[in-house]
Amino acid sequence: MLDRLYETQTCSIARSLEVVGERWSLLILRSVGLGTTRFDDLQAKIGITRSMLVTRLKSLVDEGVLEKRQYSKKPPRYEYLMTEKGQDLWPVLFHLMRWGDRYYLDPNGPPTLIQHRGCGGQPDLHLNCDRCGKPLERSDIKAIPGPGRREVAQPDDFAPTPA
Amino acid sequence: MLDRLYETQTCSIARSLEVVGERWSLLILRSVGLGTTRFDDLQAKIGITRSMLVTRLKSLVDEGVLEKRQYSKKPPRYEYLMTEKGQDLWPVLFHLMRWGDRYYLDPNGPPTLIQHRGCGGQPDLHLNCDRCGKPLERSDIKAIPGPGRREVAQPDDFAPTPA
Repeated sequence: MLDRLYETQTCSIARSLEVVGERWSLLILRSVGLGTTRFDDLQAKIGITRSMLVTRLKSLVDEGVLEKRQYSKKPPRYEYLMTEKGQDLWPVLFHLMRWGDRYYLDPNGPPTLIQHRGCGGQPDLHLNCDRCGKPLERSDIKAIPGPGRREVAQPDDFAPTPA
Repeated sequence: MLDRLYETQTCSIARSLEVVGERWSLLILRSVGLGTTRFDDLQAKIGITRSMLVTRLKSLVDEGVLEKRQYSKKPPRYEYLMTEKGQDLWPVLFHLMRWGDRYYLDPNGPPTLIQHRGCGGQPDLHLNCDRCGKPLERSDIKAIPGPGRREVAQPDDFAPTPA
C-alpha cells in the first residue's frame, strides 16, 4: 500500500503502518467494521474520492484485510467484508475511539458507544466489560449511536453481518 | 495536523486520526515512546525528511501529544517528550505492534518484545500479563529487542525516562 521505506527498520509497528498507516485506510476499516460494506455507501460515509477509495480498497484486499464479494450480477456490484486479519484490528480501532472520546469529546458525549452485547456494559482499557467484568472478544461487542451522534444512524453492529 | 474534513461526521476515530492519522505521526510517537527524543536522532531512526519531521513534531506539540523541551542552550537543542495525552496512545501502538507481529512476522521472530517489568511476561489481548495475570498499565511495561531485531539497539524503555 505505502512504499516500504522501512525494509531495514525491523519494527512491527512500521510494518503494520505500511498496510493501514494512513487515515483513509483506517476510516474504511472503521466503516466496514460498522457494517457499511458497499462501494457507494462507503464513499458517501467517508467523504473520499472514488479514485482514492478504489486505490485503498484494492490495497486492503491485496493485503488480505478485506475480502471483495459480488452481491449483484446485473448490474455487477461488489461489497467488502472484513477478513479475520481485518477483524483482528478491532483493538486498534477501539483504542483510537477511546482516546478520541477522552481528548476530543463532543459536548454532547461520545458519538458512538461500544457495548457488551446483552449486558450493556462497555469495554475498559483491558477490554473487560466495565459492568460484568467479562474479558471481551470481538464477537461480544456491538456499536450503538451515542449521545454525541449528530447524523441519523441505525445501530450498526461492530461486525459485518454474516452472509 | 490534517485538514478537518469530518467536522460533520461525528466519530471519535475520525477525530483521533486528524491528530495521529498518518504513518509519520505514529512512527514519531513510537520512537519517542521508545526513548528516542532528540530531533537528529528521530530523523535518523525514522528516515523522514527534516522538513516533514519539523511539521509533524509541531503538530503533535500543538495538539498536546508531545512536549518540546530545551536540553542545551549553547547550541540551542530540543527534545520531545510524551505528555500524558501522548502516553495514553500506548494501547493503540501496542495493538498495532501485536497485529504486525501476527501477520507480518519476521522469520526470526518479533523485532521488539514488550515485557512486564520484573516479571518477564508479555501483555495479551487484554493487556494482562500472560505470565502472572496482572492487568498491566503503561508504567508496568518496557520494550526490549526481540529475536527479529536486525539493527544494533539498546534495550529502550517503552516510556521516556523521567527528567
